[in-house]
Amino acid sequence: MPSQQGLGVAVIGTGKMGADHVRRLHEVISGARVVAVADIEAERAKTLAATIDGCTAYTDPVAAMAAGEVDAVLIASPGDAHEAALIEAIGRDLPVLCEKPMTPDTASSLRVLDAEQRLGHRRVQVGFMRRYDAEYVKLKGLLHSGELGAALMLHQRHRNLAMPPGFTDEMLITSSVSHEVDATRWLLDQEIAAVTVLKPTASSLAPAGMNDPQFVLLETSSGALADVEIFGHCGYGYQVQAEAVCERGVVRIGDEQGPRVSTEGRWGGRVPPDYVERFEDAYDREVQAWVDATRRGEVTGPSAWDGYAAAAVCEAGLASQRDGGRVEVELVERPEFYG
Amino acid sequence: MPSQQGLGVAVIGTGKMGADHVRRLHEVISGARVVAVADIEAERAKTLAATIDGCTAYTDPVAAMAAGEVDAVLIASPGDAHEAALIEAIGRDLPVLCEKPMTPDTASSLRVLDAEQRLGHRRVQVGFMRRYDAEYVKLKGLLHSGELGAALMLHQRHRNLAMPPGFTDEMLITSSVSHEVDATRWLLDQEIAAVTVLKPTASSLAPAGMNDPQFVLLETSSGALADVEIFGHCGYGYQVQAEAVCERGVVRIGDEQGPRVSTEGRWGGRVPPDYVERFEDAYDREVQAWVDATRRGEVTGPSAWDGYAAAAVCEAGLASQRDGGRVEVELVERPEFYG
Amino acid sequence: MPSQQGLGVAVIGTGKMGADHVRRLHEVISGARVVAVADIEAERAKTLAATIDGCTAYTDPVAAMAAGEVDAVLIASPGDAHEAALIEAIGRDLPVLCEKPMTPDTASSLRVLDAEQRLGHRRVQVGFMRRYDAEYVKLKGLLHSGELGAALMLHQRHRNLAMPPGFTDEMLITSSVSHEVDATRWLLDQEIAAVTVLKPTASSLAPAGMNDPQFVLLETSSGALADVEIFGHCGYGYQVQAEAVCERGVVRIGDEQGPRVSTEGRWGGRVPPDYVERFEDAYDREVQAWVDATRRGEVTGPSAWDGYAAAAVCEAGLASQRDGGRVEVELVERPEFYG
Amino acid sequence: MPSQQGLGVAVIGTGKMGADHVRRLHEVISGARVVAVADIEAERAKTLAATIDGCTAYTDPVAAMAAGEVDAVLIASPGDAHEAALIEAIGRDLPVLCEKPMTPDTASSLRVLDAEQRLGHRRVQVGFMRRYDAEYVKLKGLLHSGELGAALMLHQRHRNLAMPPGFTDEMLITSSVSHEVDATRWLLDQEIAAVTVLKPTASSLAPAGMNDPQFVLLETSSGALADVEIFGHCGYGYQVQAEAVCERGVVRIGDEQGPRVSTEGRWGGRVPPDYVERFEDAYDREVQAWVDATRRGEVTGPSAWDGYAAAAVCEAGLASQRDGGRVEVELVERPEFYG
Repeated sequence: MPSQQGLGVAVIGTGKMGADHVRRLHEVISGARVVAVADIEAERAKTLAATIDGCTAYTDPVAAMAAGEVDAVLIASPGDAHEAALIEAIGRDLPVLCEKPMTPDTASSLRVLDAEQRLGHRRVQVGFMRRYDAEYVKLKGLLHSGELGAALMLHQRHRNLAMPPGFTDEMLITSSVSHEVDATRWLLDQEIAAVTVLKPTASSLAPAGMNDPQFVLLETSSGALADVEIFGHCGYGYQVQAEAVCERGVVRIGDEQGPRVSTEGRWGGRVPPDYVERFEDAYDREVQAWVDATRRGEVTGPSAWDGYAAAAVCEAGLASQRDGGRVEVELVERPEFYG
Repeated sequence: MPSQQGLGVAVIGTGKMGADHVRRLHEVISGARVVAVADIEAERAKTLAATIDGCTAYTDPVAAMAAGEVDAVLIASPGDAHEAALIEAIGRDLPVLCEKPMTPDTASSLRVLDAEQRLGHRRVQVGFMRRYDAEYVKLKGLLHSGELGAALMLHQRHRNLAMPPGFTDEMLITSSVSHEVDATRWLLDQEIAAVTVLKPTASSLAPAGMNDPQFVLLETSSGALADVEIFGHCGYGYQVQAEAVCERGVVRIGDEQGPRVSTEGRWGGRVPPDYVERFEDAYDREVQAWVDATRRGEVTGPSAWDGYAAAAVCEAGLASQRDGGRVEVELVERPEFYG
Repeated sequence: MPSQQGLGVAVIGTGKMGADHVRRLHEVISGARVVAVADIEAERAKTLAATIDGCTAYTDPVAAMAAGEVDAVLIASPGDAHEAALIEAIGRDLPVLCEKPMTPDTASSLRVLDAEQRLGHRRVQVGFMRRYDAEYVKLKGLLHSGELGAALMLHQRHRNLAMPPGFTDEMLITSSVSHEVDATRWLLDQEIAAVTVLKPTASSLAPAGMNDPQFVLLETSSGALADVEIFGHCGYGYQVQAEAVCERGVVRIGDEQGPRVSTEGRWGGRVPPDYVERFEDAYDREVQAWVDATRRGEVTGPSAWDGYAAAAVCEAGLASQRDGGRVEVELVERPEFYG
Repeated sequence: MPSQQGLGVAVIGTGKMGADHVRRLHEVISGARVVAVADIEAERAKTLAATIDGCTAYTDPVAAMAAGEVDAVLIASPGDAHEAALIEAIGRDLPVLCEKPMTPDTASSLRVLDAEQRLGHRRVQVGFMRRYDAEYVKLKGLLHSGELGAALMLHQRHRNLAMPPGFTDEMLITSSVSHEVDATRWLLDQEIAAVTVLKPTASSLAPAGMNDPQFVLLETSSGALADVEIFGHCGYGYQVQAEAVCERGVVRIGDEQGPRVSTEGRWGGRVPPDYVERFEDAYDREVQAWVDATRRGEVTGPSAWDGYAAAAVCEAGLASQRDGGRVEVELVERPEFYG
């Protein structure tokens, strides 16, 4: 039961994303306070905790979740630490917002599903934040209004200025395309049945040995076709676009941000350098929606099932990326628990 | 001194704008709560107060401001009630966010300036919320970065789907163009020295007898020229645009909102019907910024001087609208108090 | 009577514009050939004539018009030489396409009108080539379809990268704004009744002593209002735009030319450097339409009356530019001859 | 040798496309005249010929080509009549502009290549008119300037309002996608090595039994990847777009045509209903370029090899469309004759 002072949140992981969520909860979000942060790097956690009245630093996520005043948990640690933290939070019946990917593979995802089902009610929201971007929300609304008829195809672009050192071909799928995997499932309200990954000639500006860009085909259960251009080193900025082709019209989002400047022989606008600028509002809305729902005693947003389904599609994608060809996605039967 | 539970706000006026601010403070804004609402229509205030825990309804603004837990005041009553409420709030040393226009004329505006100066420190922020719109902020940033050189002209468009019954030619200036008056002063960082109002043939779709649209020329103290198309009944939506012509480039904002839909022989996007949709984010940012600054013990945003200057320009605009020709703006000397 | 080989054209003036028309008639236009060119600079004319089979060079325009095979005349000499050439061509009953301005002032324009009326049928087309630009034509079509209601205002932008040395404040009106004067008259199908020229602070990048940019207000006979931003040294390219504000909608042309390139942190397109690139198609269409009409024995396009009316508006504009304030335009009664 | 009066052209086929080319040659194109038309429907040919001085109607293409004053041939008959007409024209050493597809399959295409090589010099230009569209030309220029680095992917959209009755799945490839096949080869300057055709769920608004839309993947010889959305019944207009993804930037063409109209709650522009409006200028430029080159004694534009290569890719596409999966494209070795 959140106190009068708002939802007490323990943030697990204080790297770039975790620290940004701490700042967001502290400065932007209404009705929440950060009461605990946890990181195996003790100093990093301590320094961050020191910036907030009433916030304590821990090295052990379990200790952080066990602290007084903790009403909910935000998990932003590395992906392979998610499973343990999720199981712990579920065991404590604490609402969780868990950054994507929920877990690195389907086996671990299924264990999270089991734990939540054993608890008997939903506790987990997965951080697919595009569902909170204003334009994605409008696109979803248009598709579901029916005014353009059924969506038949979905063309998506996901371009990054450059990737951090050590970024691999596999991460293009699991870390980047996983966003489009969820967006496709959510926008079309269909599961993905098969994946094909194509690797055109790599850009000479990508790191040696990396197949970048790649082109991913997603076939849905009812026959819609989604394609995703993933480009890790496009060199000019961060651009995320989607175009839905429907029976009576086409909708495009993610382009043409203002202001428009005419100067030096060119007219046009700015392409932001990264997701922080491009999706700042979406992150704010996501966390606010989570806080609001949690305070109402509800769980909304992408579920653990969504986290599992994305993991399954990415697994198939990795197989296609490695061996070539079309790979079917195997999903367990969807539990009634997930509606 | 705000309590742990956030800034206690008394909202004066519970009409469309006031009720929207109450909802905003309650649901959107971080760090504030509505503890009192006041309206001469007792039932309206009561109904609204009943939606919020710990909020009391009053018919007398003075009583509302005097209530316990009131740390700050938001004035959203009709314009001719602003002066009394402002003087009262200043007398109580309470921070105020006052909807525009600050007061209906320069005489009353000057009395507010006097009261605030007698108090000895700033307490008043005026609700010129375009300063909080993301694109206006980017435009201001571009102009002040110097990268495009000095701004020489500013073309502005302010189009409304339709105006409420009873809307007059005068209100086109005082209620509508006053936004562009402030935006011009703020973007160019200059006072306005003269105003000319031109009245082209009226639209046959505007109410009989109304001169709509009008075209307003604003000359600044250092010779920049701003023009404003004000159209109260453009019939197709709410469109607010600005284009700054600088020495090395031109910047345009307020156009081309996505998503882009191609259907029925047309490509393009939606024009919102009103300021609520168009400027929702700007209102949220404005009030959040006011709450944040107030909690830090600061007063930021448009000052009472800005409210006075806008009133002076509008007075000159009304004279030009009535009598024709160019009318110079008379301003008292700017007190050092206002920096 | 044009020969089988197409309309024989004498081109008077072989400067930048004249040479370009010679090239156009020779390479682009169907149904015409250049049979004579005239220029007081004999060498320039000779060099040009040498590039075309069957074309003879002259120094005297009269001799060029008198040459065999001359069916029509294109006048591209300096503006103050137009009157004599027009009178000569009219005297010979030759169809003329005369670059704008038709003549430098109303007195000389009226003499051309007299000559044409004495001849008894129209022979003169004036080179207001915006009437042949694809987007202007679409704008005109939209305005006259009535689907957007009456046009109430017209906002126009006319920006140049830079002007040639020696370009004066007066030429901003007579050489540049004269295009918008004609476009306004043509688009709105109304005469212009009054002109006001405003001079904001000059760009520091314009030549010393020049008032650049300027802002021109044109009031039409039935109360529509047109404004023109003329900027001779905007520094970034050649941009000509128009926006018509109608009772039921707004139309904008002249913006956003593709392709759209995203690179180096920016998305957008190219702004052409000059009218040659921007209006190449319009010039081609204009001359082709003139050739086609002439071969059919017709005179279409802007008439000598249009040339006179533009001269009258520019005269009023020069007075306003010099003395300030609003200057009414005095027109002689429109002869029935001009419909 | 063309006469003084311009290139004498025989037009074979007087259906919609042929009649449009006759009008174009007669009214728009400089330096050509239609001296013969041929159609098995004698009345149709006769009626058309009657509109042009000096033009004779034939039912037999051979007779038309044999007529006096015929300097060149334009073939716009149905695709399966092309081979015979091409062989005849080549036999007569007449320059030919042949509408696409050059012939219906690779076997017939190879016979045309043989005939032309036996003749010993190029005579055939194939009507891939996108190479003459202003935006395609700019895109090609940008790609070849090298300023954006190598092109890695090419996303193409080809949407039609609706197809004529009797249009088949196969024709989506041979009649529609063949344009993108040529555009891909031309823009990237590479052959296509493999084709995959995907068939998402059909639009319920397409004719029963038709797989519409389809999605075609083209892999080039050096590893670039091109995708083509072909949609025969998109229901809202004719839209052809291309987006090239390069190492340092992305270029998009075919979108956003002006004027921009804001009305009825929407801003945006018109989508043309068909290729006649969308590509009118491209057709004009194509035929003018052919006439100009022919008069200079040159053959430029897409060659018979381009016609053959497109046929080979379409054959592979039909196999993939019928049997599923990826189909490699078999090309004979490129004769030195075709450079």
